[in-house]
Amino acid sequence: MSSLTAPYTFTLRSYWRSSASWRVRVALELKGLSYRYEPVHLVRDGGEQHQAAHLALNPMAQVPHLTVSDARGQTWQLTQSVAILSLLDHLAPTPLMFPSDPWERARVLELLEVINSGIQPIQNLSVLQAVERMGGDKVSWATEAIARGLKALEWRCQSERPLLSAPFVMGDSPGAFEAALIPQLYNARRFSLDLSPYPRLLELEALCAELEAFQRASPDAQPDALRSQQV
Amino acid sequence: MSSLTAPYTFTLRSYWRSSASWRVRVALELKGLSYRYEPVHLVRDGGEQHQAAHLALNPMAQVPHLTVSDARGQTWQLTQSVAILSLLDHLAPTPLMFPSDPWERARVLELLEVINSGIQPIQNLSVLQAVERMGGDKVSWATEAIARGLKALEWRCQSERPLLSAPFVMGDSPGAFEAALIPQLYNARRFSLDLSPYPRLLELEALCAELEAFQRASPDAQPDALRSQQV
Repeated sequence: MSSLTAPYTFTLRSYWRSSASWRVRVALELKGLSYRYEPVHLVRDGGEQHQAAHLALNPMAQVPHLTVSDARGQTWQLTQSVAILSLLDHLAPTPLMFPSDPWERARVLELLEVINSGIQPIQNLSVLQAVERMGGDKVSWATEAIARGLKALEWRCQSERPLLSAPFVMGDSPGAFEAALIPQLYNARRFSLDLSPYPRLLELEALCAELEAFQRASPDAQPDALRSQQV
Repeated sequence: MSSLTAPYTFTLRSYWRSSASWRVRVALELKGLSYRYEPVHLVRDGGEQHQAAHLALNPMAQVPHLTVSDARGQTWQLTQSVAILSLLDHLAPTPLMFPSDPWERARVLELLEVINSGIQPIQNLSVLQAVERMGGDKVSWATEAIARGLKALEWRCQSERPLLSAPFVMGDSPGAFEAALIPQLYNARRFSLDLSPYPRLLELEALCAELEAFQRASPDAQPDALRSQQV
């Protein structure tokens, strides 16, 4: 049904510390796709994601937001990191973010959704701000959600050896799960969570840290990281 | 990689009002797959999802949880509704929950994730209980999250006509998005949210209400619904 044809160009609306944006950056970098970076500052001035220009692209007031364009000027707009990773697998299949084997794909989706729907939405910026307004303890709120999710992930990785240990969860190269795990572990560290109960997750993190794609996708390497530190 | 072979049998750990379980029930019914129903009562006695028997299957303390078995006694366990729907598409492809066209699939995933990661985790039972403990107003907390998400969904459905209006979002039969939308609208009504700003979503709901699969998957049709009302 698509009216777009290759070659494609990409524009990513992102925030340096947004973990969902970070997942998409990892996928773009792993696939060797260059893209234009459009920062959306989630904190400054009440949050640019709430301004009309961004809401017109995504009424959820979230990043990431990807625009795919082709040589004829056709465009396709997409939000939600899981959806974006799925589309990128079609546009640039190497390496795949989701395995082609349907059983493996289901397993990767399970691991990914533990983070994407089970952890991240509960400890994202807007929810933590709301918890603070209610007088709650945002650190214990966040660490509780993160620890429960990481425990489930570590348990699954351990109970499904050797499948999930080869050396990334689905083989020789990282995919959608690793793209989500690395930002989630970064968030865990921001809340000083003890990560020692999760040796397999730490092993995956160490493997990813060696890869240039993960280095280039990291928050500190983004153009808006410096500006945030200056503000 | 799977060691299972057809024919398969299915056991679903579910709670009648769990919207993620409901999505899986819709998929099983649409595909005409019979399954054994194992209720996990999320409310009674502090919640059976927190008991050892369930935590051994899912440390996230959530439903749904699907067990797939084959004639040789091999089993495969899977949590997370999105992952389960993806696997069911492989085991019983008619009708597909996710379109085979990669652009359409990405769009369905976007719509689905607005609910799955954008609304549901913020207004699920455990988060609302926590909001109440902090002295917050759980009704306004839930309605705010639901309204923002439904607005984004209605906007996308309207802005992508005719694609998303044929008559279900991806054609002649409902899929993963409708399976998630119906439970979300049910939750919206429990919080007395005004649904009149979302005519396309209400149209989809009316179409689904006519289908036997959705009737059979509804909370009131589940074996644990009656027991809940007695307790």
